[in-house]
Amino acid sequence: MSDQRVVRPTPISGFPEWTPQVRAVEQRWLDHIRAGFESFGFASIETPSVENLDVLMAKGETSQEVYTLHRLQADAKDDSDARLGLHFDLTVPFARYVAQHFNELTFPFKRYQTQRVWRGERPQEGRYREFTQCDIDVINVDSVPLHFDAELPRIVYRVLSGLDIPAWTLNVNNRKVLQGFYEGLGVKDPIAVIRAVDKLHKIGDEGVREILEGEGLTAEQIDPCLALARIRGAGVIEQVRALGVVSELLEEGLEELAFVLDDLADLPEGSVVADLSIARGLDYYTGTVYEASFDDDPGYGSICAGGRYENLAGQFIRKRLPGVGISIGLTRIFAKLVAEGRIEGGRICPTDVMVVVPSAERRADALRTGELLRERGFNTEVFHSTAKVGKQIQYAAKKGIPFVWFPPFEEGGEHEVKNMAQGEQGAADPAVWSPAT
Amino acid sequence: MSDQRVVRPTPISGFPEWTPQVRAVEQRWLDHIRAGFESFGFASIETPSVENLDVLMAKGETSQEVYTLHRLQADAKDDSDARLGLHFDLTVPFARYVAQHFNELTFPFKRYQTQRVWRGERPQEGRYREFTQCDIDVINVDSVPLHFDAELPRIVYRVLSGLDIPAWTLNVNNRKVLQGFYEGLGVKDPIAVIRAVDKLHKIGDEGVREILEGEGLTAEQIDPCLALARIRGAGVIEQVRALGVVSELLEEGLEELAFVLDDLADLPEGSVVADLSIARGLDYYTGTVYEASFDDDPGYGSICAGGRYENLAGQFIRKRLPGVGISIGLTRIFAKLVAEGRIEGGRICPTDVMVVVPSAERRADALRTGELLRERGFNTEVFHSTAKVGKQIQYAAKKGIPFVWFPPFEEGGEHEVKNMAQGEQGAADPAVWSPAT
Repeated sequence: MSDQRVVRPTPISGFPEWTPQVRAVEQRWLDHIRAGFESFGFASIETPSVENLDVLMAKGETSQEVYTLHRLQADAKDDSDARLGLHFDLTVPFARYVAQHFNELTFPFKRYQTQRVWRGERPQEGRYREFTQCDIDVINVDSVPLHFDAELPRIVYRVLSGLDIPAWTLNVNNRKVLQGFYEGLGVKDPIAVIRAVDKLHKIGDEGVREILEGEGLTAEQIDPCLALARIRGAGVIEQVRALGVVSELLEEGLEELAFVLDDLADLPEGSVVADLSIARGLDYYTGTVYEASFDDDPGYGSICAGGRYENLAGQFIRKRLPGVGISIGLTRIFAKLVAEGRIEGGRICPTDVMVVVPSAERRADALRTGELLRERGFNTEVFHSTAKVGKQIQYAAKKGIPFVWFPPFEEGGEHEVKNMAQGEQGAADPAVWSPAT
Repeated sequence: MSDQRVVRPTPISGFPEWTPQVRAVEQRWLDHIRAGFESFGFASIETPSVENLDVLMAKGETSQEVYTLHRLQADAKDDSDARLGLHFDLTVPFARYVAQHFNELTFPFKRYQTQRVWRGERPQEGRYREFTQCDIDVINVDSVPLHFDAELPRIVYRVLSGLDIPAWTLNVNNRKVLQGFYEGLGVKDPIAVIRAVDKLHKIGDEGVREILEGEGLTAEQIDPCLALARIRGAGVIEQVRALGVVSELLEEGLEELAFVLDDLADLPEGSVVADLSIARGLDYYTGTVYEASFDDDPGYGSICAGGRYENLAGQFIRKRLPGVGISIGLTRIFAKLVAEGRIEGGRICPTDVMVVVPSAERRADALRTGELLRERGFNTEVFHSTAKVGKQIQYAAKKGIPFVWFPPFEEGGEHEVKNMAQGEQGAADPAVWSPAT
C-alpha cells in the first residue's frame, strides 16, 4: 500500500446515499411507482439535468435555489456553459419540453417523469439538495377535461397504497372555491389571502388573522375565511354553501370539487379527502389543488402535491396549454423511513442461486449450469474461484443467497441443490428446477 | 393568451433529450441492461451526482472537464457548495463509496451503477456533456480472483447481444503483456509506450513510431512493439511467444490472458477477441483491459471499456482494494442509433386498452372496468370525457392504443372489445379477457 495522502470521504449534507440493501428497496419503490403510472397510460420522458437559465428563470422565481454550472478551468473562448443551471423541479423542464417538441407530441399528452432535482437550500429534515421526484402531468391544447383532476388522485392512491409507508391522506381543494369565496366577501386581493391561508398549518389561526389584518381585511371578512379553512371531509360542498357567501367563481369551484370527489367515491374513505385549508402557495395553480402528508407527522411537510394550471408553457410557446399534475416526493418519503429505521429488509445482492465450482477442470461445466439457470430466469452467480466447497458455501451464506447449486463433481454425476434457509439438499435438474418444489 | 415575452426553447448542445417514443426504447434498453447485470448477481448502487472536489481531484486529473456547482445568489456566509463538482464518471464515486461504506459492504462486492455523468468537453459526434453510463465492478480486499476478469466480458456479451445494435467486438488484452514485453525489449518507460500504442488506431503505425522514436526507442525496439500490436484473434499467446521476447511480467500476463480467453471459449467466435493493440491510456489499469467498438465504425470510439486495477480506493482508505470493472456507454451507443434513424418503433404511450365511457351516468362503471383490467396487468386508460364514442376511438387510434373496450352501454348489457389493428369487435369479459384469444 502506498503512503500517499488519504482523502477521508465524508457524506455531503443534503445529498442522500444508500447502502446496497436500502438501494434495493428504493429500486423496488421506483419500479412500483413506474408500473403504477404506466398502468394508467402515462408515457415516460426524461429531460437533461440542466436548462438554460432564461428558461429556469422564465417565471422570475426561486433564483436563490438554483445551482449554476461552471467549468473548473473554463476556456474563456467557450462560455457556452455559463448560462446553464440544474433544474429545481420537473415542471419547468416539462413545460419547456412540451413547447420545444410540440409538433412531435400527441395530445392530450400524459407523461410521467422520475428524475433527480437540485435545490441549493439549507439541508434540514425532509429537505435535500438533491432528491428524486416522481411527476405525472396531463397537458392539452386549449382545455383539459376535469376527469383528469380526478384521475391523478386515483393514481396516487394506487401507487402510495402499494408502498409500506405510514398512514397518509391526500387532501384536495379547488383554488376557485377559495378565490371565489374571498371575492364574494369583497376581498380586494384574494391571492394574498390564499398565500396567508397556505401558512395556516404552520402559523395557526392567529398567525393567519394577523396577516389578513395587515392586508386590510375586516373581522367580518377574516372570520369566514378561517371558517372556510376549517371545512374538511364529508359534505364539504354543503358546509361551504352554509357559510352564505355567493360568487360565480365560488359556484364554479364547488361544482369542480364536487365532480372530482364524486369520481373518486369508490376509493376507501379517508384516503382522498376534501380539505378547504389546502391552498398551495404557487401562483400558477388555478383550479384543483392537491397536497398529501403523513397523518402522524403533518409537520414533516407535503409528501405529494400538485394541481391544475391554466397555462403552463406560455413563457415558451404562443399556445394555451393548460394541464393538471401531481408530484410524489420520493426522496422525502423514503429518506424519512430510512432515518427511522423502517427500511431494512433489502437483499445484499439479487442472486437467487450460487453455482459451486467443484474444481478447475469442472469450471466450464459450472459455467454452463449457470447459463442454463439464468436463461430460466434465476439470477445466478458461478463461484469466482476454485476455493474449497465449504468456503464457497460460506460466501453464499454471507451474501444471503437462498440456494446453492452443486453441479456433478464428476462426469455423469447428479446435480444437487441446497436450500440455505432450511439446509436441505437434494437432487435437481437445472433445466426444470423450481425453488418451490 | 397573454402577450408576455416568449423564451423560445432550443436544444442545449451536448445534452441529449428524446421524444416519448424514443424514450420508451431507451427505457427498455435500461431494463434489459439492469436485468442482465442482476442475472449475474450484481447489486445496484447509486451515488449523489456531486462529489467534493478533493474527491474528484484525488487522482489529479481531468480537472478541465469538471463542472462545479455555484448558487445563483450565493449567501456569503454559506459556501458549503463551493467545493462540489458533478461526477465525470462512476469509477471515482464508486471508489469513494466503497471507502466510505467499507464496514457496511460484503466482499467481494459486485455492484452495478447506471447513472448520468457530466463532462464539460466540447460536444461532438459520440461525445456528450451529459450522458448515461452503465458500470459493473467487482472489488475486494487484497485480491480479486481472475475469474471475474472473464465474467465481465461474458456479462457484456449477454447484455449487448440482446440489444438491436450494429455488429460490435469486445477486444481484450492484458497490460502485463504489454508492459512485460516492452520491459523484455529493454524499454526504459513502458508506460510511455502503452500511451503511444493506445493511439495506434487514430494515428497509425507511423504516428506511433514517431512518438516512440521521440521516447528514444531504437528501430529494434519499435518494430517488435508494432508487431505485438498487430496480433489479434485466435492463437495470440503463441504468436506473442513467437516474437521471442522474454520477461517474467510478460509470462504472467500471457497466463492471465490465456485464462480469460479459455474461460470465455463457449461464447460465439468473434464476440470477445484478444487484441494486443488495446492499451487503455488510463494509468490505473494494471492487468486485463477491455474495449469494444462497432465493427463498421471503429472511429466512433469505444462503446464499452474497462479493466483491472490493483488499488482503486487507495486515495480514500488505507486498505488495498483491487478490482475489475467495465462500463457500457449507453448514451454513446443509443444516440448514434437515434441519429441514424435506427430507433423509431417505440410506442406513443404504454396503454394496452382504452375503456370507452358511454355516458356520464355510466362513467363509474367504466372506471370499475378500468380498475379490473389494471388489476389483471393491462395498462388501461379510461377515456377522459364523455365525448362521442367515435371521438374516443379516434383518440385511441391516434395514440396507438391496441385495444378499445366497450363497457355495457346500459345496465345488464355486454362488454365488448375491439382489436384496433384488425378492426374486429366482439363480446368479452374483463375478468378473464386475454388479448391473445
